Order: sequence, then C-alpha cells, then structure tokens
Amino acid sequence: MLQSCRFCVNFALMEPTYSSTLLEDAVSALSRFPGIGRKTALRLALYLLRRPAEEADTIGEAIMRLRQGVRYCRVCHNISEKEVCDICASPVRDAATVCVVETVRDVMSLEATGQYNGLYHVLGGVISPIDGIGPDQLELASLAQRVAETNTVREVILATSPTVEGDTTNYYIYRLLSRLPRQVKITQLARGVAVGNDIEYTDEATLARSLVGRIPFEL
Amino acid sequence: MLQSCRFCVNFALMEPTYSSTLLEDAVSALSRFPGIGRKTALRLALYLLRRPAEEADTIGEAIMRLRQGVRYCRVCHNISEKEVCDICASPVRDAATVCVVETVRDVMSLEATGQYNGLYHVLGGVISPIDGIGPDQLELASLAQRVAETNTVREVILATSPTVEGDTTNYYIYRLLSRLPRQVKITQLARGVAVGNDIEYTDEATLARSLVGRIPFEL
Repeated sequence: MLQSCRFCVNFALMEPTYSSTLLEDAVSALSRFPGIGRKTALRLALYLLRRPAEEADTIGEAIMRLRQGVRYCRVCHNISEKEVCDICASPVRDAATVCVVETVRDVMSLEATGQYNGLYHVLGGVISPIDGIGPDQLELASLAQRVAETNTVREVILATSPTVEGDTTNYYIYRLLSRLPRQVKITQLARGVAVGNDIEYTDEATLARSLVGRIPFEL
Repeated sequence: MLQSCRFCVNFALMEPTYSSTLLEDAVSALSRFPGIGRKTALRLALYLLRRPAEEADTIGEAIMRLRQGVRYCRVCHNISEKEVCDICASPVRDAATVCVVETVRDVMSLEATGQYNGLYHVLGGVISPIDGIGPDQLELASLAQRVAETNTVREVILATSPTVEGDTTNYYIYRLLSRLPRQVKITQLARGVAVGNDIEYTDEATLARSLVGRIPFEL
C-alpha cells in the first residue's frame, strides 16, 4: 500500500490492491485484449462475480473453443466450419472473380455491402518489412497456384487497405500474376471521396486521386 | 445477406455474416460484458485468432476459475483467498473502526488512498426499491451482529455513494445501529468540492454542502 501525499492525490498510475490472486489473474488475462486496460479488465471481472457462475463458464468456454476449434477454408483461407467454406462451395457465386483481402474481417465488411457475388482470398496480412512480415508468411503462393490451376478465375480484385504496405502487396501480387502463363484481369477498389464525407475535410491525396480517377456522371 | 441501396450505404445496424458458429458464439459471449458491443466483441475474438492457442486458454480458464473459485471473507464479505480476509486478520489494522462500503471495488478505492487503517464491511449494494433490492439482500444484519457481538468496534464510517439510494442505506444503518444496546460513533465521508475540480463546474448541491460543512483552514 502506498502512502499518498495529502495534497497530491493523483493515483492514476497506481495498481489497486487485489485481495485475491484469482481476481488478479482474471484482470491480467482480460487486459491482454487490445483496447482493454487493467481498469476496464477489473470492471469486467467484477461484473462476472455479480452474475451466475454459468455465465462465466459460457464466456470462458466460448473463448477456448473458438481458438481450439476454428478451421480455415483450404481454398480461400477464410474462417470456416468445413474444409471448404460456404462461399467457396456455393454454386450461385461467381467463381470467375476472386477478391484478395487482408483479413477475415475484410471478408465480413465486403459481404455486408451486399454488392459482391464472387469469391475471396484471405492473405492473412500485408507485406510489412517493419513488422517482419514478408511474402512467405502470407497466402500469396496459394493465390498464384489458385489462379494458375483453376481455369475459372478471370478477374482478381485487389482489396487491400490503401496504405504503403497495402500498395506494396498489390504490386507484388501484380508481378506474381503477370508471370503466370494464363493472364487474368487485375483490378483494384476505386479510391476517392468517402460517401457522406465533406470535401472540405477530405485529405489532399484522396482528393487528388478522386479527381484523376473521375467517372462519368450517371443517374 | 442484405441488398443495399446504391446511394444509402448506412450499414451501422447490420449484423455481419459470420462464417463460423464458433466465431459467432465467441462474439455473443464476449458481448455480454458491460460496455462491450458486438463490434468490439468481434475485434476481441479476431484478436484471439491471431494469437497462440495458449493465450486463449489462459484467458478462458482465468474467467472460469475466477467465478468458480472466488471466496468471500466471513467477517467483512470482501473477496478473499481464505475464510477471513487479510485485512480482517491483520494484527496491525485498527479493529475499532469499520468502514461500510457498497462493493468490493470500493474497498480497493479506499485502500488505494493509503489513508485508512481500519476494517471494512461490504454490503453488496445499496437499498434500491426500484431495482428490487431491500435490506434483506444486503449484509446489513451481519453488520449489526458484528457491531453488537465484537466489543472492539467503536466507530462505523458510512462510505456509500452520495446518491438517494446511498443516503437511504445510511439512514437505515443509522437506525439499525441506534437500536443496539452498545452505542458506537457513526460518521460519514466528508462531502464537498472534489480535489482538482473547478468551483465553476461544481454542481449547486455539492457546493452548498461544501459551504455548510466548511472546515478550519490549516497549513
């Protein structure tokens, strides 16, 4: 226990005294999550103590089962229940188009638009030398193999994030697919002013791209 | 999957398509925590998938062990490792003073000040008819018993939150302890301007209390 000055009462950086190691362990465990500090973790742990024991079991088991039981689609590397995911196995989806994304979350975002009916390829990240992620750690070879071996793919849409790393990865994929004997069309997501944003608050780079890449006005 | 309008692209209320029930279960479980919505829960679940399996096990087990293994002190009802907690069992703490608090979190807050050397009594909440919480659901009878049976207690400090419910509970405790054959001093936390706050932004009720309860200036 720290003795505090009578006048300076800033305890922001102080760790509270936990009266139980179980509580301390739970706080340490929960604060591993991104965006959850020790203070929030303590609030979550104390919430669990106020609830029936079954609720804590449900949460704990769901966390463990997720990590142990999760499978990835053999074709597109998205999270899946089966060896080949529902999107890849679907007969109504357009197998001629493959959209290359960074993460599983991006597949959800694109699916939520309801505008895409093709297949996906989840890279598992982007090329980022500063984070030690090279082409070998990503699903790039399997993308080239997929395009080369299946005769159905006619277009590859690059949907990585518009960052330096994303652009590097796009360039790498472009080079990789250009070297294949069978050529496919390579496209990328349109870059421009975000819907609902003010022109005034749009950064110069985006505004410049939206001007250069302007499109015919349609009703 | 929802088909969205080409112009109105607000998907804020849309639930994403989970490609795995394990993932959906984990998101549902994590979003039970207060302050964690489904979007944050998804971010946490996807974080787990990027980490080693041991980490998910650590978190899951800590949650389950906390709820199953936690014990409460027989005397003060604080979270404890043993039947009687370290604070109640400590020979250096002043057994003549008992500070009545609402929750376990409040004990931590008071301990963090380093200004208190007495014992605690955790009520487990406050009297709140609107939430269906009456005196019987709280550790009020055990407080009266503790004061009546141990001859050491000479002062009871009421440290409930300064709300209507807290004040009601304080009044109830005052009545309860007044009826005991042995009389103890009953005090409450000082109410006034918070340290570091601007007078300008202090509400009228608090400012009025701080004026009525003004104290001699000391260096």
